[in-house]
Formats: sequence, C-alpha cells, structure tokens
Amino acid sequence: MAGNSFGTILKLTTFGESHGEALGGILEGCPAGLELDLQAIQRDLDRRRPGQSAIVTQRKEADQVQFYSGIFEGKTTGTPIGFLIPNTNQKSRDYTHIKETYRPSHADYVYDQKYGFRDYRGGGRSSARETVSRVVAGAIAKQLLGNVEIQAYVSQVGSIKLQKPYEDLDLSKTESNPVRCPDPEMAAEMEAYIKQVRKQGDTVGGVISCVVSNVPAGLGEPVFDKLHARLALAMLSINAVKGFEYGSGFDGVQMLGSDHNDAFNPDGSTRSNFSGGIQGGISNGMDIYFNVAFKPVATLLQQYDTIDREGKVVQLQGKGRHDPCVVPRAVPIVEAMAALVLADFKLLSRLSKL
Amino acid sequence: MAGNSFGTILKLTTFGESHGEALGGILEGCPAGLELDLQAIQRDLDRRRPGQSAIVTQRKEADQVQFYSGIFEGKTTGTPIGFLIPNTNQKSRDYTHIKETYRPSHADYVYDQKYGFRDYRGGGRSSARETVSRVVAGAIAKQLLGNVEIQAYVSQVGSIKLQKPYEDLDLSKTESNPVRCPDPEMAAEMEAYIKQVRKQGDTVGGVISCVVSNVPAGLGEPVFDKLHARLALAMLSINAVKGFEYGSGFDGVQMLGSDHNDAFNPDGSTRSNFSGGIQGGISNGMDIYFNVAFKPVATLLQQYDTIDREGKVVQLQGKGRHDPCVVPRAVPIVEAMAALVLADFKLLSRLSKL
Amino acid sequence: MAGNSFGTILKLTTFGESHGEALGGILEGCPAGLELDLQAIQRDLDRRRPGQSAIVTQRKEADQVQFYSGIFEGKTTGTPIGFLIPNTNQKSRDYTHIKETYRPSHADYVYDQKYGFRDYRGGGRSSARETVSRVVAGAIAKQLLGNVEIQAYVSQVGSIKLQKPYEDLDLSKTESNPVRCPDPEMAAEMEAYIKQVRKQGDTVGGVISCVVSNVPAGLGEPVFDKLHARLALAMLSINAVKGFEYGSGFDGVQMLGSDHNDAFNPDGSTRSNFSGGIQGGISNGMDIYFNVAFKPVATLLQQYDTIDREGKVVQLQGKGRHDPCVVPRAVPIVEAMAALVLADFKLLSRLSKL
Amino acid sequence: MAGNSFGTILKLTTFGESHGEALGGILEGCPAGLELDLQAIQRDLDRRRPGQSAIVTQRKEADQVQFYSGIFEGKTTGTPIGFLIPNTNQKSRDYTHIKETYRPSHADYVYDQKYGFRDYRGGGRSSARETVSRVVAGAIAKQLLGNVEIQAYVSQVGSIKLQKPYEDLDLSKTESNPVRCPDPEMAAEMEAYIKQVRKQGDTVGGVISCVVSNVPAGLGEPVFDKLHARLALAMLSINAVKGFEYGSGFDGVQMLGSDHNDAFNPDGSTRSNFSGGIQGGISNGMDIYFNVAFKPVATLLQQYDTIDREGKVVQLQGKGRHDPCVVPRAVPIVEAMAALVLADFKLLSRLSKL
Repeated sequence: MAGNSFGTILKLTTFGESHGEALGGILEGCPAGLELDLQAIQRDLDRRRPGQSAIVTQRKEADQVQFYSGIFEGKTTGTPIGFLIPNTNQKSRDYTHIKETYRPSHADYVYDQKYGFRDYRGGGRSSARETVSRVVAGAIAKQLLGNVEIQAYVSQVGSIKLQKPYEDLDLSKTESNPVRCPDPEMAAEMEAYIKQVRKQGDTVGGVISCVVSNVPAGLGEPVFDKLHARLALAMLSINAVKGFEYGSGFDGVQMLGSDHNDAFNPDGSTRSNFSGGIQGGISNGMDIYFNVAFKPVATLLQQYDTIDREGKVVQLQGKGRHDPCVVPRAVPIVEAMAALVLADFKLLSRLSKL
Repeated sequence: MAGNSFGTILKLTTFGESHGEALGGILEGCPAGLELDLQAIQRDLDRRRPGQSAIVTQRKEADQVQFYSGIFEGKTTGTPIGFLIPNTNQKSRDYTHIKETYRPSHADYVYDQKYGFRDYRGGGRSSARETVSRVVAGAIAKQLLGNVEIQAYVSQVGSIKLQKPYEDLDLSKTESNPVRCPDPEMAAEMEAYIKQVRKQGDTVGGVISCVVSNVPAGLGEPVFDKLHARLALAMLSINAVKGFEYGSGFDGVQMLGSDHNDAFNPDGSTRSNFSGGIQGGISNGMDIYFNVAFKPVATLLQQYDTIDREGKVVQLQGKGRHDPCVVPRAVPIVEAMAALVLADFKLLSRLSKL
Repeated sequence: MAGNSFGTILKLTTFGESHGEALGGILEGCPAGLELDLQAIQRDLDRRRPGQSAIVTQRKEADQVQFYSGIFEGKTTGTPIGFLIPNTNQKSRDYTHIKETYRPSHADYVYDQKYGFRDYRGGGRSSARETVSRVVAGAIAKQLLGNVEIQAYVSQVGSIKLQKPYEDLDLSKTESNPVRCPDPEMAAEMEAYIKQVRKQGDTVGGVISCVVSNVPAGLGEPVFDKLHARLALAMLSINAVKGFEYGSGFDGVQMLGSDHNDAFNPDGSTRSNFSGGIQGGISNGMDIYFNVAFKPVATLLQQYDTIDREGKVVQLQGKGRHDPCVVPRAVPIVEAMAALVLADFKLLSRLSKL
Repeated sequence: MAGNSFGTILKLTTFGESHGEALGGILEGCPAGLELDLQAIQRDLDRRRPGQSAIVTQRKEADQVQFYSGIFEGKTTGTPIGFLIPNTNQKSRDYTHIKETYRPSHADYVYDQKYGFRDYRGGGRSSARETVSRVVAGAIAKQLLGNVEIQAYVSQVGSIKLQKPYEDLDLSKTESNPVRCPDPEMAAEMEAYIKQVRKQGDTVGGVISCVVSNVPAGLGEPVFDKLHARLALAMLSINAVKGFEYGSGFDGVQMLGSDHNDAFNPDGSTRSNFSGGIQGGISNGMDIYFNVAFKPVATLLQQYDTIDREGKVVQLQGKGRHDPCVVPRAVPIVEAMAALVLADFKLLSRLSKL
C-alpha cells in the first residue's frame, strides 16, 4: 500500500485504524533546534476533537498525543518524531451487522475489492479518525513556519454561503463559535441549520476557506509540484473533500485576461490578487487563499437499504455518534495539511540557489 | 529543484525549456511487452500542437517525438523510455525588452525570487510547452490502460457553459470542432466568442470536463494518495489551472447526505454516481468524472504597464502568437495526466493482495 | 533528516532513540492477506536481544513488540503496520560526564556538528538499538518471502576465520551456540576469544556470512537498484559494518574471466556460482551469498583520553554493559535487512511484465 | 522498472541501451547559479572513453555530450539538466547468433526471465555503456562540491596489489599512465599483465581505491542513508563490482577496539583514521577512503559452450572489442558516483539545522 506518506523533506507517514488501539505517525525532516510548544499541538488536537460542541459528534475521545522520539530538552533533535494517539473509545461492539454489508458511499465495498477483505470495525483505515495524526504533524509544521499565518474558516454550510471576500472578515473571530465561521450572524444561521439537519438524522456539506499570509516569495517547485498542486493534493486527501480552487478559482474562468492579470506595484507586490499568491506554482509573497468543498458525510442516522457481500439487499440502521456536518471539525485539518505543504516547501527553498 | 517527476511506479520525469533546443522526458515503469502504437502517440501530440486551428496560437511547431530507448521491435522492454521533442521554432529573437522586466501574472518575478536569475527567453521552464512531454507519456499510459477510456472535452468558455451532464452528450463529437466541445451548437458559440476575444488581443478562461469509463474497482491508494487527490495534483500541475472538482464537486456541498449517498445495485454498481466513481479514494467501477478550471492566460497582445527588476514602471507590448483561450489545446493534456494517474494506480493495484 | 526509510514498495520507516520511552516503526506495502506468525517475529527479536548469553551485553531489555495497526484477525490488511518496542531499561542515569564530551569513534562529535546539539543519553538515534525495529519488519518480510530461505551465521571473529565455503557447513547448527557459528569447534574457539577480549574490557570485530536459497530468477532492478547494490546499502546501514562483498567478492579480483564465468547447465542453473546468484543486478535462481564485515565496537570498558566540546582533553571511563563482539547478536539483523531487500524486490517483480 | 534514479535531492535518472541511438539522462536538483565548466565534463568523459589507450577496448565512441536544458548563459538555472550522448558506433551488425543464446555471467538469461524478452543487441540496458551518463552527472556534481577533492585510482590488477596506504602515494600521478595507478612501477607491471591477459583473449579483475578530501563534517544521514551505505550502493551499482569496504574495511575485523578507535585531537580531527572519515554514517572531516572490487568482465575473446533459450548447448565465439580489465576506465565512474553521493549529502546538510 502506497499513500501513507505526505511531503518531500518534511514527511509525515501515518498508521492506524479507527478501531485499533492507537493511531500515530512519524514526522521526518524537521530540522534540529526547533523549540516545540507542546500545548499548541494539543490545542489543535482539541479543535479537531469529537464532543467539543453540540453540533459535532458526541463520541468521546481524549486525543492526547504521546511523543516517543525526536524531541530532547524541549527541542527537536533532527531525528524522526514518532508519536501515538491512543484510541480511548474503542468499544467492544458487535459489528456483525456491518461485517458482511456495504454501507453506501463508504469505502467498505472498495476495500473488499482492493484487498480481498477488510477491517470491518468502523471505517478502519478509511476513517477520518486518521487525520488526528495530521493535526499533530501540522501543528509542528506551523511552528516551523514561524510567522507564516494559516487561517482556515467555514465559509459555507449547505447553501448558506458567506459572500464576503476574506479581506472583509475578522478572522480572529473564527474560533468564537462552534461552526468556526468568522461572521457571527452567518455562523448562527449555519449552526441552526446543522442542528436541524442533525435532528433529521441527515448530514450536509460545506466549504472551508483558508488564507495564508506572510508567505515569502519563492516557495513551490515548478512543473509537477507546483505550490497549488500540492495544496490540492493535500486537501483532496482529506476525507469527504470533493473540490479545490485557489485564487480566482472556478469563477476566474469567466474573466478576461486583461481583468485577471495582477498588475505589479513597484515593490513586487500586486494590486489585485486573482493569482491567489501563486504564479507558475511559486509563491509571490501575496496572500494565498483557497476553498475546499466537503460533501455531506455518508453516515446517516436513518434506516436505508443496501447490499451485502453476496449482493443481497439488506436493511441497515445508522446509529451511533456522527457529525451532521464535517466542516467545523475539519478546519484544523485543513490548516494542518496547508502547514505541512508550506513547511515542506520552505525547507525545499533552501536548495534552490547555490 | 524538485517537482520534475510524476508517478510512483509509472513515473515521468521531464526536462526542457520553451526556448531550448529540445524538451523531453523519461518514462519509467512501463512493463515489458506492451506493443506500442506510435501513431496514436503522434496523434495526441497533434491534438496539442500549436497552429492546428484558427482559434489557437499560430506558432509553428512540428512536435515530432523521437524515442531513444525502452522500445525494441515495436514493444516496450521494461527499461526507461527516453524521448525528445525538438523545438523547431526557436527564433533567435531579441529578448532585451523582457530580460529585465516582469510580465504580470507570469512566473518571471517568482523565478527571479527563487533562483536569483532566470532563462528569460519566453517562459523557460514555466512555459506550457513543457506539457508536450506529458502528452507523449500520457499516450503511452493510455495504451497501457487497455480498454479504460478517457474522454476530456471543453464544457465552458468564459461564461458560455454546457449545462448537460456528460451522460447526455455524444463525446464522440468532441474532435469534430476546433473548440473540442461535444455539443456542436455550444461549440460554435464558444468558437465565435474566442475569436472575438482574440481580436481584442485579450484572453479568456474555460473548463475542461473529463470522463473515465471502464475503470476496474480497486484503483487508488487510501489516505494521502487517494485516486481523486492524485487527479487533483495532476490537473493543478497543468499550466493555468485554478480548480478541480470531481463527482458532485462544489455543488455537492449543498446536498443532504440522504440525497448524496449512492445506493447500491445488487451487482455492486450504484444507482446514482455523486461519488464520481471513487469512494474513500479508491475506484468503485463506476464512471470517474471531474472538472478542471483554467484561468485566462496571462499573455495579452495589448500594451500594459509593469515593472522591471529595479521596480521601475515600464511599458510592455504583448506580441507574437499566443492562445486566446487555452482549453481547446489543453484537452489532450488533461487526458494525458489522467492516463498517467490511472495507469500508475493500475500497476500499484497489482501489489494490494498477497 | 532523510534516511529513516528503507525499501521501495515494502517500506520500513523507523523512529526512536536508545534512551527514549520506545522505539518503533511503520512497515508499509505488505500485501493484504498474509497470515502472520507473531511468535516467529518475537523469536527473531529474542535472537537479537541483549542478555541472551554470556558473550553479549548483559543489559536487560524485554524487547516485546506491540502492533497497533495493519493486522486484523491474524492477517495483514494491506494498511501500514505500526509497531512499538518499549525501552524497559531506561535508567534515569547521570549523563553529565558524557554530555559535554565526545567518545572516540562514536557519533557524538558528528551529531553535534550536523545538528548543533544532540540527545546525549547513550547513542541516541545512532545506537544499534534502532535495529530492533528492523528485526520486527524483517521477520514479517521473511514470512512474505515464503520458501525463500535466509541463513546468516558468524564466519569470522577477530582473526579466527571459518575457511570452509557455506556448502560444506551445516547451517542448521548456527543457533546451537552463542556465537552463531555453524562449525561447533570454531564456535568454541571464537567464544573463548570473545570472553578473553571482554575480560580486557576490549572489543573485537567479525564477519557475518549470509546465504539466501530458493530465490526465484528475476528479482532486482537493473542499473541503480541492482539486487546486490541494495543488499550492500542494507548491510552498510547496520551499525559497525565496514564492508560488503558478494559471490566471489574481493577474492574474485584475482581470477581470470575464463575461470570466473559461470557456465550454464541446460536448465539455466550454473555449474559454478562465482556470480553469487546475481547477474546484472538480477537474481538468476542460484544461491545468493555475501559477507559483511563488522569493526570492533567503539565502546570499551577501559579508561581513555578524549576531548570535550571545547576541545579540552578529558578522561572517560567506559562502564556499563556492552557487547565485546557485535556479530553474534547482529546475525538476525543481517537476516532482517536481507529479507527486507528480497521481499521488496519480490513485490517489484510483479511489475516487470505486462 | 525501478532503479533508474540515483540521489535524493541531486537526482540522476538515466535511460538508454548500448545499441540504441543515444543514451542520456536528467540531472535534477542542481541549485541555480553554478557556473559550469563544460570542458571539465568532457574531460571526464574522455577518461572513460573506449579507445583511449592500448589496454582498453578499441571500440570507437566519440562520447560527446549534448545538453538540452537547465543551463543558461553558462550557469545552471535550477531546472533539470537534460542531456544526450549519441551512440556513434552502432553497427548494423548481425545479432542472430546471440539472439537466442545466453552468454555466461552476462545479464542475458536474467533479463529474459524478468521481462519475458530482451533487446539482444549487445548488453542493452545492462551494458556498462550506461555509465556514460553517470560520468556527465558526476562531473557536474564535482563542480558543485567546490574544493572537495575526489581521487580514485587503480590499486590492484589481478594479484598485483599496491601495498602502500594512500597517504604514501602521489595521487597526482594517477593519470600519467594508462592503468591509472599512481605508482609508476606498479602501473607498468599491471599494464604488462593486462596486455598478457588480453593476448589470451581473457580478462582479469581489479580494485579501485578512492580518497575524498576536504569533506566538511556533517555530511550523511543517520540510519538507512549513512554516508558509507550510500557510497556502497553507488559503487555496487557500477557494472562488475563485487565488493566495497571503507576505512579499516575487512581488515579492521581483526583489530581490537582499543587499537581501532580514533583518538581525538583537540580540534576535533583524529590521530588515526580507521573510521575512514565517517562515524555513525556522518562525515567527521577526515579523509574518506574506500576500496571497490571489480570482477573480471565476462566477455571473453575465446570460444566457449553455453545454452540457448531452449536449453540446448551451443558454441559461441567471443569477438569484437572488449576490455581485458575494466578498472582503468572505471576510475572516472567511481569518482562520478562518489561525487553524486557527496553532492547530494552536501545539499541535504542544508536541512539539518533550523
């Protein structure tokens, strides 16, 4: 199985299933001498944690990270950082009902097709629980990035959409409400809608926007590892993501080049920023901003028909504690993946000149 | 410089600048014994070639590929396939005017920031001319994929947008017009609009949609190398691309889970396909479909103000032969990159079971 | 920091320092469906374990591996196998004396040069204790290899050298003595010599030979990843190794080609085997055999002069529990690394033909 | 096919067969701004070239490298350097006699086993002609290394062995004789012996020693990518190599630790250098030195029995122009591979500290 690693120099490799004893990972490539703020790491874990508010899953997970290596006397040593997040909430549940059935729009069917059998307890490796390791690594990457600021927020839930550009928002308010939308009125509207959807046992999608400021010019590698291409890979690797756009994005399609081009100021900054801070795959020093679309998660608290391994139609009843809308808890995950991309390119940029 | 390679097993590494003597690449990982149809490769190159119609750049490039290795008696040998595409159209032009200036929304400025200096003749490595190597490799990947069918087409130019889903289109008509839109009426409208934009010395964006059929279930690797995440990386690595969405995409955000979930048929196929043929990052056997947004290209045939290396404002006059809208010529590039992703995963899928 | 991973498809990434809470790793790429014999894994760990005999270090380490993922109902699932080996023997010792000093022929000095500071408790990441993770992964690789048999043994200690070729030895006797030399008389001689060296507080080097049988033809990748080149990388990555030779090795230098060439039998096997089972970097089905040279380990139980960080001469007194000769305990490590190389190539060989 | 790339940051990927139109490669990762001495590159190619003296193959190959990218106005641009070396000497020979037969100790048999068929014209991809690309890339790596000095020389031919340590040799004399042995008397003896072997239509092996001076401390990555482990991989990837040892090597096995340990001088240098300039896989600033054993090449100008694809015994008559002893021409190849290893680690060392 490929695909458990992310990054070129700053490289995260993760392991773990939703119902194993623990998940964890190894973060390689962090230079020696970085003083780590371990509380900041835990803070990001808490932002991702189940049970943090009324509109997210009520599952209880402590999500305490344990570090095993690569840190000495409070500083990174340059050696790989191994860590574990124990699954404190594995219930010895009865899985018989889903053992032989395929839940719609889950990975059950494709895992069986690919591997011949699967760990049927919950989503196994395909569960979004895996992202807990990314949040740990991303929190370290943020510290490596110094004053580069990565701010993600919820900009859409269902059809409730924040129309303002990010420059008109006070992003410091993002954490002030459980939806993580920096506009308090919109946040309230979104929250009410999520609660209503939850009551129906249903789920709904959303969009997370992300703004990265204070990025030095020169990050990103031409051709196949363009900065925005790696961001797209990073975002689409997050569970439930269906789309990515940066800068002018899909709307830019309709513009004329004469409107879309970002004219230079004498200092190299640009008057407009349809480029989204990236030209030719390389940061130009302006803000990087992008949108990430999340589908409604597939796990419903409703009854539905599906099939078993033999193709026989069976009825399943969704139960348990699931997120009616995934975007509030995905905000720190988006930030973490963005941080991993940028910190990796920051290290790579040390290699571009003689 | 990282970022010149694409793929894990089937791996393409490219080299070359727009104004060098030649571009080329090495394709590794193609298994031995594949009978190659060299004319099919050239056909895809011709679909990408400048000068093929009135609405694309009138630059003359023969774009004839020369193979140097890895093919013997008409079949791949399992060794790396080295190839070259000579630049027949390098003019010994005078570049003095752009040598010291930064064209807006080009990579000039960021290359200088990153590397300290740059090959100022045309776009250098950042030119879309680099994609010629991808088309060669992608055409081989298509042959490796056997009956997997990859069909890209233009679905939007400026605000002229094909509203029909792909199932209602006759994709065999894509090549019947210079826009590469399978709906002849819309194609004519798009073509007229592109001509009008060109007359103004301006450019406009567009969307390419792509459908992949006959994909076996089980392609894609969980977590960081999800099938759709690699497709996103592939597409965003193409010049001028600003966004990617697959399946329900950005529109799916507004749906409820109960509507979005794809119920199973007894044979494992699904009644709807909002998943876009991919669940948990792994193909499920249904059609894969996705959209790719292209911005209006930055090179205008107009006069404009910009800055030079010292930050002094200077005037530039765009001239030469450029594409008013990049999407018609980008269709084979989208296909090539999709083919590289899928063929790579097809090879990787040999490794998933004992 | 690069260099924590080994392998292309079957890939081991390790973390951990000698005096951290635990060491561990992630093994990726093991296909789904392999029934794992966990006791066989522990058995190899026990062969590497300190304290197993009178001629190895008397340090007490339980070396019990804990698996966290990738195994379900006794079988590999195709997802990454995460594991931990707790360090049960970390003493809260006083390290003040070595904190500021550089032990000769250890990695203390170079770590400080490279990273600016170091985890000074024992060898940190440079300790041979890291190989515990390799033995776990290698034991899984052995099971993946099926009937391929990997047999390492001690063929030299100091100047006491087994003169017989491996064909004349009964390799089933290797484990019958603490030296792991299959010739009981030589083993006794070696054991006596090691005891004498230990009494002096000194150390001595040795050679491990390894024979791999039942290897199918076709393993190995031409050019840079030749089978023997990867074996060399694997072996030289083991602590204290100074040399590697395979087949005729350094002695083959003196032979004439007409003597050295291995004439074919009609079935494709060869009459002699100076090639060591590998031609052009690819296995030919004959036995693979190679030698690995280990230097005398640097940790002495003697008093010696050395320098501190300021270059001042200081006296150190080696103490504690160290191996007088590393080769007996390194036998399972050599096997583990050989298994990782061969299993990786076995998986890669699935990709060579259409 | 894996295995066509070498290096992590400074990465060479090669393609080409002995009897194709050209061989070549792509060198990635060379930082921008390196002023290239193209004549120095050609000089190393000439040192490797056939026909340069009476004791090497009399095949005529111009071996002129053509660069296609990555160099502008005499300096590297940071983009990949693509290059080609045309095969000027492909004769349209009759290969019928070897098409269906397997030459002993060649890669013919294993290629057929691995790939199902092979390019039977000469050695194809397994030919040492592939190393021409390495010499090009290695010559660039040397320039990147600045004042790091890499000096390889022939220290043994057959049983004629230079007994002096490298410190007692005048390495500036290496190029003064066709054998590339810095001791003129030994060189003459070796030359006479090679001529005698050639007269018999036979071949003989040899050893190349290599000394690297002025290496800064801190190069190399712990654990799997130890500096000496990567050197071993590099050397064993060269055709005909059977063994590698560094520092005290196989002889060090017999030493006691108290003799083998390299005591420090106050400045961090060491009084002895049994470590070979590397401790724990990381350079310590002392000279790095190592030996590489080459077998007698398999191509004889004699008649011999062998088998064909059906296992039938057939007679072959070796003819043509082959090297009776490969080491004189392999000297620049050893240097090139060493340079690639060291330059790669030099770049990686920029990433070790904050």
